[in-house]
Amino acid sequence: MNATRYLELPSPYILRRGGQISGAKLAYETWGSLNADASNALLILTGLSPSAHAASSPDDPAQGWWESMLGPGKAIDTQRWFVICVNSLGSCKGSTGPASKNPETESEYRLDFPELTLEDVAESARHVLDHFRIKRLGALVGPSMGGMSAMAFAVMFPGMAPNLVLISTAPYSLPFATAIRSLQRESIRRDPNWNNGHYANDHWPEQGFRTARKLGMISYRSAAEWRDRFGRKRLNVRPEKPFEREFEVEAYLDVHADRFVGSFDPNSYLYLSRAMDWFDLSDHGGAVDIALSRMQARRALVIGVSTDILFPIEQQREIAEGLRNAGVVVDYFPLPSIQGHDAFLVDFERFAPIVANFLGCL
Amino acid sequence: MNATRYLELPSPYILRRGGQISGAKLAYETWGSLNADASNALLILTGLSPSAHAASSPDDPAQGWWESMLGPGKAIDTQRWFVICVNSLGSCKGSTGPASKNPETESEYRLDFPELTLEDVAESARHVLDHFRIKRLGALVGPSMGGMSAMAFAVMFPGMAPNLVLISTAPYSLPFATAIRSLQRESIRRDPNWNNGHYANDHWPEQGFRTARKLGMISYRSAAEWRDRFGRKRLNVRPEKPFEREFEVEAYLDVHADRFVGSFDPNSYLYLSRAMDWFDLSDHGGAVDIALSRMQARRALVIGVSTDILFPIEQQREIAEGLRNAGVVVDYFPLPSIQGHDAFLVDFERFAPIVANFLGCL
Repeated sequence: MNATRYLELPSPYILRRGGQISGAKLAYETWGSLNADASNALLILTGLSPSAHAASSPDDPAQGWWESMLGPGKAIDTQRWFVICVNSLGSCKGSTGPASKNPETESEYRLDFPELTLEDVAESARHVLDHFRIKRLGALVGPSMGGMSAMAFAVMFPGMAPNLVLISTAPYSLPFATAIRSLQRESIRRDPNWNNGHYANDHWPEQGFRTARKLGMISYRSAAEWRDRFGRKRLNVRPEKPFEREFEVEAYLDVHADRFVGSFDPNSYLYLSRAMDWFDLSDHGGAVDIALSRMQARRALVIGVSTDILFPIEQQREIAEGLRNAGVVVDYFPLPSIQGHDAFLVDFERFAPIVANFLGCL
Repeated sequence: MNATRYLELPSPYILRRGGQISGAKLAYETWGSLNADASNALLILTGLSPSAHAASSPDDPAQGWWESMLGPGKAIDTQRWFVICVNSLGSCKGSTGPASKNPETESEYRLDFPELTLEDVAESARHVLDHFRIKRLGALVGPSMGGMSAMAFAVMFPGMAPNLVLISTAPYSLPFATAIRSLQRESIRRDPNWNNGHYANDHWPEQGFRTARKLGMISYRSAAEWRDRFGRKRLNVRPEKPFEREFEVEAYLDVHADRFVGSFDPNSYLYLSRAMDWFDLSDHGGAVDIALSRMQARRALVIGVSTDILFPIEQQREIAEGLRNAGVVVDYFPLPSIQGHDAFLVDFERFAPIVANFLGCL
């Protein structure tokens, strides 16, 4: 069973940097029911890798990536909200991306996929709202990259998202984050199997992608968490060859690489990763504060985590202060979660009540 | 001109994990003069990559890696101290390491070089002291990996190093640091040119080594420094190919990779990197505090930097507290330098007066 629905985008679909795609579609899922005046819609824009399957539903009982946050009676209560989660344009979980077939050539786009920005991710999601005749969102929720896309949405469609939930996100990429992402992309591109992006489906650049994913995990979690969790614990088996893994933390990275590689398209990763580095909210008006003031938001919940090294807490504070300066009523929560950037995916004890409370007061 | 001197180690030289090497030697340099009772010797053990050339001298006027710290009238004053800096065993800057020729086979050791620990690095340096008939050091100085080697030295030769200067170092590797180092090693090993360690001299695993070095730079500096230094500055030229560098921080990483790769042996890197992950001061007595108490130190200067993510400040505090509990008079300086782990190589305004003051009071 599958709860994924598809929306055909206008064809050709013109992207912000000038490229275009034909016959493009977006994958999305919904939970709950849209009310008569279409005022209870809640849109979730995702981080880099998640699909639209944020939570289970009768049509798809498999656990979703935000299962603990989303459902009847949960923080994002599907008895009240009509929740829509969109798989980002450029991804590989149903929406059109570099691994999709180009209808004009019958083969995969690969690097012929046009340059993609988070503004495109946001703008394309708008079409899903149009499909449901939703003129204004009840709430717009974006964690991580999804928060960047959400801010792009809010500034491009002023007034459409009066209530924002921005989680562990940033108004632009800092050079430390860009350095990490650049190295991840380089690692994929240096894999001989990458073949300038035109890899065969049975010859993915797996090794480079594994390294990229491991570097991702290093940037998603925190030193404090790993200290508590792994310490200096060693594996039970000694390495067969020199320099192979010996410590539990190394096996943990392997497990995460195993899970990810093969389930995500390396080129999609490159496109979305670059889109994050390109993203700069100040492109919309000349300064971050100007962009934030143009959103015509009324209320915002901004959450950050003190151990996040990829989207550091200062960046959430900058968003919160900018929105406040623009007259938005802002709840700002700098949380002491130990799980770093990934806290919103694991530390539900802290995140769920805050999100529930904010959405409950709307 | 060259100031490097060589000491032949006993042959065969037996390493701690059971391996042995024949005809091994250590490269070292000295500055200043040893006094009559050999009481003014100061030994510097280095981080992973430096050579023994810590500073210029009449025999070698080239700038050294710690030029601003070491010389007549400087923090490490060569008018008072007889300074010895040793290139670590296993390195490639004159001391015997994996890139050296095995006298038994006439070809490079490569991975036939035996397993190396920082205890071996410390023990071998002891032979240089014996050569000069130095029975007790005036001071033992170790930044970064050199601090680990210095603590190994101090615990293996109790009383020989009554005055310790431990800078941005750790009593053991934390899993976050191990994860980064493991990924660096993996990046080298996955380069097809690595060839299970038996690369040809004209076919080094350059790409993998470049990635490893860049990841090193990411872990050596700090997000705050890069924010100030690079912000979102872009290069003047647009990338010729998709996904090539666009931001100044990416060019900075390239420059550092260019400088390093070709000047350091990738296998040496693997051996010394692994030695850091293996190092655990608690191997000497069952607990870090026990090991610290066995050193018979009298005074110690422990310096750390709050922005260091590789050797975080908590680890220097742990060393300082453990030494204090053992009755050592400890000066502990947690510094607010913005340059992260590398601060001791650049933030001389903060480091030099502290080191000068400590050494001046001995």
